[in-house]
Amino acid sequence: MLEKINTPDDLRKLKRTELKGFCDELRRYIIETIATHPGHLASSLGVVELTVALHYVFNTPDDKLIWDVGHQAYAHKILTGRKDRFPSIRTKGGLSGFPKMNESEYDAFGTGHSSTSISAALGMAVASKLQGETERQHIAVIGDGSMTGGEAFEALNNVAVSKSNILVILNDNGISIDKSVGGLSRSLVHITASPRYNRFREAVWRRLGGDSDRKKRSRNFLAKMLFLAKSALLKRDSNLFESLGLRYFGPIDGHDIDELVTVLDRMKHIKGPKLLHIVTKKGKGLLEAERNPIEYHAPGMFDPATGKRLSTQPNTPLDPNNSKFGIQNSKLKYQEVFGHTIIELAEKNPKIVGITPAMPTGCSLNLMMERMPDRAFDVGIAEQHAVTFAAGLASQGMVPFCNIYSSFMQRAYDQVIHDVALQKLNVVMCLDRAGLVGEDGATHHGMFDLAYLRPIPNLTICAPLDERELRNMMYTAQLPDMGPFVIRYPRGAAEHSDWHTPMEKIAIGRGRCLRRGDEVAILTLGPIGNRALEAAERLRQKGVSAAVYDMRFLKPIDTEILDYIIAGGFRKVVTVEDGVKKGGLGSAVVEYFEAHLCPTPVTILGLPDRFIEHGSVAELHRECGLDIDSIVEAAL
Amino acid sequence: MLEKINTPDDLRKLKRTELKGFCDELRRYIIETIATHPGHLASSLGVVELTVALHYVFNTPDDKLIWDVGHQAYAHKILTGRKDRFPSIRTKGGLSGFPKMNESEYDAFGTGHSSTSISAALGMAVASKLQGETERQHIAVIGDGSMTGGEAFEALNNVAVSKSNILVILNDNGISIDKSVGGLSRSLVHITASPRYNRFREAVWRRLGGDSDRKKRSRNFLAKMLFLAKSALLKRDSNLFESLGLRYFGPIDGHDIDELVTVLDRMKHIKGPKLLHIVTKKGKGLLEAERNPIEYHAPGMFDPATGKRLSTQPNTPLDPNNSKFGIQNSKLKYQEVFGHTIIELAEKNPKIVGITPAMPTGCSLNLMMERMPDRAFDVGIAEQHAVTFAAGLASQGMVPFCNIYSSFMQRAYDQVIHDVALQKLNVVMCLDRAGLVGEDGATHHGMFDLAYLRPIPNLTICAPLDERELRNMMYTAQLPDMGPFVIRYPRGAAEHSDWHTPMEKIAIGRGRCLRRGDEVAILTLGPIGNRALEAAERLRQKGVSAAVYDMRFLKPIDTEILDYIIAGGFRKVVTVEDGVKKGGLGSAVVEYFEAHLCPTPVTILGLPDRFIEHGSVAELHRECGLDIDSIVEAAL
Repeated sequence: MLEKINTPDDLRKLKRTELKGFCDELRRYIIETIATHPGHLASSLGVVELTVALHYVFNTPDDKLIWDVGHQAYAHKILTGRKDRFPSIRTKGGLSGFPKMNESEYDAFGTGHSSTSISAALGMAVASKLQGETERQHIAVIGDGSMTGGEAFEALNNVAVSKSNILVILNDNGISIDKSVGGLSRSLVHITASPRYNRFREAVWRRLGGDSDRKKRSRNFLAKMLFLAKSALLKRDSNLFESLGLRYFGPIDGHDIDELVTVLDRMKHIKGPKLLHIVTKKGKGLLEAERNPIEYHAPGMFDPATGKRLSTQPNTPLDPNNSKFGIQNSKLKYQEVFGHTIIELAEKNPKIVGITPAMPTGCSLNLMMERMPDRAFDVGIAEQHAVTFAAGLASQGMVPFCNIYSSFMQRAYDQVIHDVALQKLNVVMCLDRAGLVGEDGATHHGMFDLAYLRPIPNLTICAPLDERELRNMMYTAQLPDMGPFVIRYPRGAAEHSDWHTPMEKIAIGRGRCLRRGDEVAILTLGPIGNRALEAAERLRQKGVSAAVYDMRFLKPIDTEILDYIIAGGFRKVVTVEDGVKKGGLGSAVVEYFEAHLCPTPVTILGLPDRFIEHGSVAELHRECGLDIDSIVEAAL
Repeated sequence: MLEKINTPDDLRKLKRTELKGFCDELRRYIIETIATHPGHLASSLGVVELTVALHYVFNTPDDKLIWDVGHQAYAHKILTGRKDRFPSIRTKGGLSGFPKMNESEYDAFGTGHSSTSISAALGMAVASKLQGETERQHIAVIGDGSMTGGEAFEALNNVAVSKSNILVILNDNGISIDKSVGGLSRSLVHITASPRYNRFREAVWRRLGGDSDRKKRSRNFLAKMLFLAKSALLKRDSNLFESLGLRYFGPIDGHDIDELVTVLDRMKHIKGPKLLHIVTKKGKGLLEAERNPIEYHAPGMFDPATGKRLSTQPNTPLDPNNSKFGIQNSKLKYQEVFGHTIIELAEKNPKIVGITPAMPTGCSLNLMMERMPDRAFDVGIAEQHAVTFAAGLASQGMVPFCNIYSSFMQRAYDQVIHDVALQKLNVVMCLDRAGLVGEDGATHHGMFDLAYLRPIPNLTICAPLDERELRNMMYTAQLPDMGPFVIRYPRGAAEHSDWHTPMEKIAIGRGRCLRRGDEVAILTLGPIGNRALEAAERLRQKGVSAAVYDMRFLKPIDTEILDYIIAGGFRKVVTVEDGVKKGGLGSAVVEYFEAHLCPTPVTILGLPDRFIEHGSVAELHRECGLDIDSIVEAAL
């Protein structure tokens, strides 16, 4: 069937009885494609039936469908004219891994970061109302993990009193990327695990699903279903959504396509805001993924038949209980070095705690959570809370390492200013995924952090050249009276095979000369300095003498190095950073030179003033002029 | 009594029967002081009894007490060693209008922006637990308005599953600065208005308050009270807090000091997280303030006896229904010009809608809310939602004007990047209170917006020289295909008595020459350009010819003007902006000059790299080198 179906219009021609078989085909196609074209897997497998049911019942794209976060939208993409291009997903020039408005009219709103869908859907619903489109539906599909993000709550609080046509579908699989946490999650488990859940399911099924002749069902019957739902639910424990005044339906089995179609078809006729709670299994249909949805969130290559992952490099090559920080022969990721180093530091300094907003596996804080469960906290998708929580801890003398992806730290910008920097609290903010991240694309690149953090007073901001420096910076950050401390480092493999070097204190605001030279001075921040070293070597081959300075600190910037360069008679200065040109290292250098009337011309290499799409990091660095060739060219 | 009481230790020596009288004295002292030393009034009057009860029952400062937002902490300041300095509140060098850690050990955590208190209290509670301080209490006092902010929800979600000693006090007065909005607010009204509320109150009173001999009360009795509370509450409609699994107590009368002391005293002995819902009246004890808590949030000078405001300038000098945009003889505030102009535009352009996160009176969107209730939205304290909601509206062709104070926009930074700029949506972001705001101090200055917005691709960023330009910019922003548009303008009085000039389109990215000259070029952004004009006049008197350019746009910056200046043979360039030096207009100019090898020296005038405390705007501009004298000096 999949072969014939390219759009929701084609889908709607299927008989209801054919939908189950179609879902199986669709799921298989996702598994087989992602097995060889790596991407997000488990989330999309969990919503195959929901996706089919939504497009079958609703009149997309006129009805608006928004996928929160959006890494679960693969079935949606396949069903909406992008089946043939699906194998190009997440590659340069190919389909984005997330919904994008300019990729398809079916992508009603672009996503990537979590918890935005309800706000956007409400905006659309209000627009429709003002435009007299009273029949249009506006649907936000949001996971239980995303529901912990504060913006989702802000939106629900408004949806509840709105009179707009909005349907929130809570896709409850008990998991975000890692396990969902917090009171909401616990309460959802409680609801779905209760005997009432099963009784309710059966009742819905008997009344609605068992009847194959849809025409017979009168509006009257709908009213009965609602009453049934209502009375079943009013007996249960209180529930977040009804407490806000939202009409709540469910929970129903999100893998029962027939039940989904029935319920959605009826909900379509209910005016005003409402929420449907469906229960799904992340990774559904691939046993390995069902068993281990965290690993199969984005598993890399795997065998589509068995589900077995083909990646040669395991996710966590070190078992900290086994070969404690032994010598390794393969390069770790920066993430793993962070994960092991925070444990090493925390074992010596009882003040250290670790915090992650829902990314324990991604940032490797899971290692500390296993080893020191009382001192490592996954707070859920809640960046704002994560930072203020850290500030609260620091106010009592603790030293929290708050690890947040660079692009997600945008969510906690006010908290960094207002709770940490203003109060000079010793919070160590580790910005993982800084710089270009590659395949996740525009929403996930950590482009802006240097520029948005530099204006904030009291911050120390640094970036390690390599994983040994990362360790030194982490060590330095936890020493007494360091104040607010930012360490930004990229996603992926570090530089050396021997990462476990002794840690030492780095002087705050001091960079270092990596290579001497006297014609061109290349000033860098972070691991891109290693590329600058290669560029300097090539320049030497071309007869140009280039010095390379690893500035280490964006703030306070090393004015001794800058003074030396001003005095040093260089013909040219090149600054290199894996971040936007406007406002980062280059700006800092140029501001200093201007203030000191330095006539040496400066070329700023960094990310241009536009959003960068997905592709491999190497491809994107080339495109943005941050590869070795570009550094050489700028220096010449 | 007040005379003898300087600290909570003194307070704790009072008999319980004396507390009510003491509260009256304390309230009177606040009214009399604020009558002649303007500050926030109504919020503090509402929590006099709560403040006294908390310090009476808990062992502050060892027990940690955090005031969310903090403008309600005046009684707290008076009670904690700052009574004599209280009249200095909000003046330069005087007490801050908000809690500040470095002002008193009783200020456990600095606040100013809303919805942070629960996160901070949880951080402290976890710290205490890790440090073995099992008896220490951690109390967050948060209003029902602040509870709509997403961060509060993120925190509650974590508090609910924490085993830490944390007490959240929900101070429910049905109002934030304006009226509280949304499902939560409606649900709280429902709870407190129900007959069960009164029955419960009476039961608590009978059992606890009626008995004057505290010693007799056994632990057993406590258990009974809990059971009573529980059983009374389980019958009511579901409630947000219990739905998350939090132990909920209340609602109780927050002006009944005896009841408060009794309940708090008992709650002190309950381990783990819990929430107490108290009902208070904002403005309590001053009839005018009780009647009109919005106006008396910060009423300026008033007669302490009658409560009548002395301000000569009414809040909204124009009655839009009466003398529609007639000629005015007194200068309006920028806020009022915004409020009238958006209506004027919206009457012609049906796509325009207005959005404010809980500041309708402050930003004057209340005028549009009255006139066009379907098209103007107060979304509550919910900046993140406000921006994505606007993006959703814009995705359907509407033109939302989203008005957010500059320092609060820090809360929605990710949404500006991820939902608006990336998708090039035509959201008009009006940043009110940009630049230094004066008496509200460090947490409220709109210092960072130019620096944090400039790195974001696709944004148009401008600032009007005066209110006529504000109108022109608003007019321009709503024209077709303008994309994401930022207009930043300050708090307070505008420049002209005749503000209602015809609106015209401004060319995007084009500044203008305000005054010709050939020795010094002064480049400015925003109303501070008017000060630059005065400086240029003084320079003329000193024999120096200074040109003044109103750049209008930070982004795209007017490169024609910059090219002209590069070629023009000026001896010196001075940039002037009411924002941080790092990353704003000055940086943009210096980057451009550097890229074009311009040798003319540039001096950047702007806010220094430190947080600025409270004081009048004039005092602070002088301190920061942004007054006329400083511009003259920089030019010489």
